[in-house]
Amino acid sequence: MSFKEELQKKTAEIEEILKEYLPEETGFQKTVLEAVNYSVLAGGKRLRPMLMQETFRMFGGEGELVKPFMAAMEMIHTYSLVHDDLPAMDNDEYRRGKKTTHAVYGEAMGILAGDALLNLAFETASEAFQMEISPRTARACQILSRKAGIYGMIGGQVVDVESEGQPLSREKLDFIYRLKTSALIEASMMIGAVLAGATDEELAAVESVASDVGLAFQIQDDILDVTSTLEVLGKPIHSDDKNNKTTYVTLEGLDKARKDVEEISQRALTTLRSLKYENRFLEELIQMLITREK
Amino acid sequence: MSFKEELQKKTAEIEEILKEYLPEETGFQKTVLEAVNYSVLAGGKRLRPMLMQETFRMFGGEGELVKPFMAAMEMIHTYSLVHDDLPAMDNDEYRRGKKTTHAVYGEAMGILAGDALLNLAFETASEAFQMEISPRTARACQILSRKAGIYGMIGGQVVDVESEGQPLSREKLDFIYRLKTSALIEASMMIGAVLAGATDEELAAVESVASDVGLAFQIQDDILDVTSTLEVLGKPIHSDDKNNKTTYVTLEGLDKARKDVEEISQRALTTLRSLKYENRFLEELIQMLITREK
Repeated sequence: MSFKEELQKKTAEIEEILKEYLPEETGFQKTVLEAVNYSVLAGGKRLRPMLMQETFRMFGGEGELVKPFMAAMEMIHTYSLVHDDLPAMDNDEYRRGKKTTHAVYGEAMGILAGDALLNLAFETASEAFQMEISPRTARACQILSRKAGIYGMIGGQVVDVESEGQPLSREKLDFIYRLKTSALIEASMMIGAVLAGATDEELAAVESVASDVGLAFQIQDDILDVTSTLEVLGKPIHSDDKNNKTTYVTLEGLDKARKDVEEISQRALTTLRSLKYENRFLEELIQMLITREK
Repeated sequence: MSFKEELQKKTAEIEEILKEYLPEETGFQKTVLEAVNYSVLAGGKRLRPMLMQETFRMFGGEGELVKPFMAAMEMIHTYSLVHDDLPAMDNDEYRRGKKTTHAVYGEAMGILAGDALLNLAFETASEAFQMEISPRTARACQILSRKAGIYGMIGGQVVDVESEGQPLSREKLDFIYRLKTSALIEASMMIGAVLAGATDEELAAVESVASDVGLAFQIQDDILDVTSTLEVLGKPIHSDDKNNKTTYVTLEGLDKARKDVEEISQRALTTLRSLKYENRFLEELIQMLITREK
């Protein structure tokens, strides 16, 4: 099977896992349940649950324990997009060619559906305790909540929102990228590792790999905004320039950005390969994320 | 010490516990940390953590294990108020005589501060695993997330928002009261009980007591809106009437509402007293909640 075929197969498998943890659309509160399902099933690469599952497999993890955490992670990612799209935030009517949640269900329901998803993420993660109450499940819950919160994703989101239209220092940009983008990728890979029984030392290595992957992914995003075309990217190019947005490219220039993506991603792969476990698909997946053209 | 003095003392102790779990206002994401602290410290009766702690004590609970859950519960209650006050929801500029969070920090930060609080609640609850990884801590996390979510508080909130300006059936009103108001009170008392080692049977009794307390509390709210004065209540009276809101009083009449509050609260106290444990303060607290005049 080619990497692309394998990727498709695994993505389809993750879609099925997500559906297992989504609510039935029934009862007086039906509208929010529909909005929750609409938001999660609106598409996406399912990258975070995939990184979690592949890291779990890499460390020899077997069984179902990772599944509720995969679903929980995608719910957190989804709620962050739903709230990000709200009128008071980015005010986006479309995402991936589909109407955003508040555009379909109204603003109040957009807020509530996001809240419902964030809460459901922790409710879903707690289901792991039905299978096993142990240091590894407890640790996974701690990592999930920490990396999604004020010292993780939300922290980055806040600084990003506050910095809009203002020039950014390299230090602040790094902070935003590390928290807004890397934090959930770190949590994904760390939870996979921890559930498979990785040691603290291995966990630290995984965190640094994931941090680099997130950073390289984000810089590549900045590069594509400058170098791609509308047709290839499927979304407007030069949008950062139009919005006067400080990016890695505006700060460091295109050449250095390209060089740094290469360096950061090589560092990630070297650290990953230094572990005594191996997962060829995971390596290819990381490679793809960083060298992608859209 | 009189009940009132004891209540004040215990409230002050809870304020101190809350502060232990609130973030330091430092770092690039300082604004959201300030907004989080502002929201939690804006006041409130601290009823839910108090019910949790007193139920914990009633079942013979000792030690610190209940503390992170008390803080987590108040964070969830607070986030629900912060999001409720947003322009797209109730659009309130003031609460308890203070500016609401979005009125101080702007709408985007209001959304993010609410998200941060909900997430921080689960991060805080997870801190209990630092003390103990056991069925009771795991169960407490499950109760917290379940009762706050789509089958709990958020579920009730959604139906309330959707029903605005529409006549409500008694069945739907009961659903809203049970989920929007009772669910967090149930969670509070159940978590207290579970952490103190209550049996499943005792837990079911506690859940039914809490459900009745929430319901009676809410009906009393409806009664006071009709019978109180602005001076006593400290907020506009006859607001339900003005908003064409279906309440227990509009559905059942004032006399029956009064009779039912009495009956429901007696049922709660009878069930509570049927347990082999005793907590005089808790009984008085419940009594006060239901017979309060503001």
